[in-house]
Amino acid sequence: MEFKKLTPYKEALKALLEDIDEVEGEVVPLEKAIGRVLAEDIVSRFTVPPFDRSAVDGYAVRAEDTFQAREYSPVELEVVEEIPAGEAPKKEVTPGKAIKVLTGAKIPKGANAVIMQEMVKREGNKIYILRPVAPGQNIAFAGEDVKKGEVVIKKGQILRPQDLAMLKALGIKKVKVKRKPKVGIIITGSELVDEPSEEAFEGGKIVETNSIMLISLVERYFGEPVFYGVVPDNEEEIKETIERAKKECDLVLVTGGSAFGDKDYAHKFVDLKFHGTTIKPGRPIGYGEKVFIMSGYPVAVFTQFHLFVKHALAKMVGARDYEVKIKAVLEDDVPSQLGRHEFVKVHYSNGKARVIKKRGSGIISSLVESNAYLEVPEDSEGYRRGEEVWITLY
Amino acid sequence: MEFKKLTPYKEALKALLEDIDEVEGEVVPLEKAIGRVLAEDIVSRFTVPPFDRSAVDGYAVRAEDTFQAREYSPVELEVVEEIPAGEAPKKEVTPGKAIKVLTGAKIPKGANAVIMQEMVKREGNKIYILRPVAPGQNIAFAGEDVKKGEVVIKKGQILRPQDLAMLKALGIKKVKVKRKPKVGIIITGSELVDEPSEEAFEGGKIVETNSIMLISLVERYFGEPVFYGVVPDNEEEIKETIERAKKECDLVLVTGGSAFGDKDYAHKFVDLKFHGTTIKPGRPIGYGEKVFIMSGYPVAVFTQFHLFVKHALAKMVGARDYEVKIKAVLEDDVPSQLGRHEFVKVHYSNGKARVIKKRGSGIISSLVESNAYLEVPEDSEGYRRGEEVWITLY
Repeated sequence: MEFKKLTPYKEALKALLEDIDEVEGEVVPLEKAIGRVLAEDIVSRFTVPPFDRSAVDGYAVRAEDTFQAREYSPVELEVVEEIPAGEAPKKEVTPGKAIKVLTGAKIPKGANAVIMQEMVKREGNKIYILRPVAPGQNIAFAGEDVKKGEVVIKKGQILRPQDLAMLKALGIKKVKVKRKPKVGIIITGSELVDEPSEEAFEGGKIVETNSIMLISLVERYFGEPVFYGVVPDNEEEIKETIERAKKECDLVLVTGGSAFGDKDYAHKFVDLKFHGTTIKPGRPIGYGEKVFIMSGYPVAVFTQFHLFVKHALAKMVGARDYEVKIKAVLEDDVPSQLGRHEFVKVHYSNGKARVIKKRGSGIISSLVESNAYLEVPEDSEGYRRGEEVWITLY
Repeated sequence: MEFKKLTPYKEALKALLEDIDEVEGEVVPLEKAIGRVLAEDIVSRFTVPPFDRSAVDGYAVRAEDTFQAREYSPVELEVVEEIPAGEAPKKEVTPGKAIKVLTGAKIPKGANAVIMQEMVKREGNKIYILRPVAPGQNIAFAGEDVKKGEVVIKKGQILRPQDLAMLKALGIKKVKVKRKPKVGIIITGSELVDEPSEEAFEGGKIVETNSIMLISLVERYFGEPVFYGVVPDNEEEIKETIERAKKECDLVLVTGGSAFGDKDYAHKFVDLKFHGTTIKPGRPIGYGEKVFIMSGYPVAVFTQFHLFVKHALAKMVGARDYEVKIKAVLEDDVPSQLGRHEFVKVHYSNGKARVIKKRGSGIISSLVESNAYLEVPEDSEGYRRGEEVWITLY
C-alpha cells in the first residue's frame, strides 16, 4: 500500500499549527530565565535615567564656556561645588563656573555638558580645559534608555543575556515565561539495538540514534523531553505507550511505523489530520491528536523535526525569531523534483552554501557535515550554482 | 590621568590569545554532551553500513529485469527466497528472480536494486512490477555513511543533536570534551544597588546588571561562572577578592575600576599586558594574568565580552565555529572615527541590518533592540546605507 495522496507541505503545516495551542505561563526567577520565552510584555515602571545625569566622573560645565579651549591656551573655570555621591546639586553652573559631579549624579542647573576629570588639569578650586566639549557631552538624558510605561521587551522574546540585564535594571526579579511543553518521545522497532557490533550488523540490526537526537532537539526548541524508551514492534505495547504519553504530555513524537511496512503499526492508533506529505526526505510523516508519527530513519526524523515539530513547539510557547534565515550563494546545483518540498542539507560558511552530496535517510554523516538547510518548494525545479538562496541555520 | 596609548584592537586581541592556553578534557556521558566542545577527533571503529544493504522493506532484483516494466504491461518475477529479519541471504538473484528483504538486510548476490514492497503487486510467489527501478535504488552502500578509520567529527566541534546521534551510532557512550573553564565574576562599585527606586536614582545609585548578564554570557560561551558578588569601592577588599578568584578560577572578569576615576582601583592589582584599547565602546579594558579589568557600564561590558572574553573562552576550549557571521545590507549610514575599532549594534532581519541609534555605554535598551554587531576597524571611516557588510549574530 502506498500513500493515496501526499498533502502539500504548506497545507500540512497549516493544519498542524491550527491544531496547536499556546501553553500557559509560569513565573521563574530571573536567574533561571535564560533561553525561556517571555509570556507577557514587559512594561517599565520607571523612566531610566529618571533625570539628566552624568555618564562619567567629571565637571558639569556650560559647553559654550569651553569653545575657545586649546592646548596652548586652556580655559580656566572655577569649581563652585563638589557634589558627594548620592546627593543633589545645590548650586547652579553660571558662566565661568563648574561643578564636580560623580557618575550618575543629577546634572546641575545651567550646565549642558560634563567634561571627564581625566581631561582637565585641576589646581585648587580651578580647572583648566584644553579642548572644547560639545553640548550634551557625557550626559545621559532622562528617558534615553527607557521611558516609564514603555514596552521594553515584547511577549515571545527568547530571553538573552542582555534582556536579563534590562529586566534587572527595571527591578524585575521574577518573570513570566511560557511553561516548557512536555514532549513524549517513543521509539519503536524490534530491529533497534543500543550499540553497534559486527553481529548486530550481520543480523540487519540498526543502532538506535533517534532518542538522543530528539531529546536534545526538543530541549533546544523550548520543550521538556519525556523519554518512553524503545518499544518493540508489538501492536498492543505501542498502542499503550502512545495512550500513556498522550495523557502525560503536551505533544508526542513516535518514530518508526509511519510508512506502510508489515510492522508499521503506530499510525493506526491516532486519528491523523494528515499522513504522507510532499516533503523529502521524511515523506511518510503523520500528525493528529498532538501526536507525530515519524520515520525511523535519523535523517528523515531530523527533517520532520525541523519542518514540522520545531514550528509546533515555537507556536506552543509563542516564540518569535527562533530561526536564523540567511542568504547564501550556492556552490553547487540543486536539482529538485517538481511536487516535492525538498530539505537540502548544506554547509554554510563565509556567505556560501555547499550542498552535502550524501543522500539517504539513514546517512547521519550528512547531518553532521551540514549546518543549515535550504527548502525547495513543490513548484520549483531547484536552483543553480551561483544563485543566492535563503537558508536556515541549525 | 588618561591612557597614554591605546593598544589597537587586533594587537590587544593577539596579546590576549597568546596568553591563553587550552584547558584539559574530561569524559562525560553522551547524554550530558550537548553544547560541549569535543576534545579529540572521533575516529570510527566501524564501516557503516558494513555491507550493501536494503534501505527499505521490499524485493531485491536485477534492475535490468525491470526496465521494460509498464503499468499496462507489468514485469513478472519469481520470489525465490524470503530472508527473515537478522539472517543472511542463502540464494542469488538470477534473471527473472527476486528475493524478499527487510530494511537493513544484506543485499543478495546478483541483485543491484531493491524495489519497495508497496510498489509491487504480489500474488503467491510472483511479484508484478509496474515501473522500472534504477540500479542502486534503495540500496545503502557499504561505507556510504562512515568508513572504518575515518575521522567523523573533528576536535573543536560544538556538539549538536545530530553529532550525538552519530556518536551513538558508532557505539560511543562517553565522549571527551573540554572541561568548562571556571570564570570568576567580580562586580565592583559602591554606587551599585540591587533594585531601582526613586530614592536610589536621586542618590545617583545605579542598578547592578552586569552580574546576571555576564553569568549567562559565560555559560553561553563554554564557561562555568563563579560569582564573587558585588564588592564596594574598598581597595583592600577588591584586591583580596581578585587574589582569591585568581586562585580558584581559570579566568577572572572584574567590572568597574578600569578607567582612572578616583575609585578605579582594580587595575592596580594586576600586571596588565594592555590597558586601554581602540575599541568603542569599552575603551578602558585591561588584561593580564588571566584577569580582565572591564568597564562598569553594561554596554561597554557587553562589547568587551564579545570582542575579547568570548574569543579567550573559545580558545580555552578549542571551539570552532562559535560565531555566526553573515552578510547584511545596511539600512543606515555608519560613520566611524578613524583610529577606533567600533562595535556597532544592529538589528538583523531578512538580509538587512538596521543600526541601533541609541548610544551611550549605559543604555541597555540598545542591546535589547539589537541582535548582531558590525565591527568597523580603525582604518575605516565607516559604511554607507546600502553597502553589504559582515555582521556577527549574538
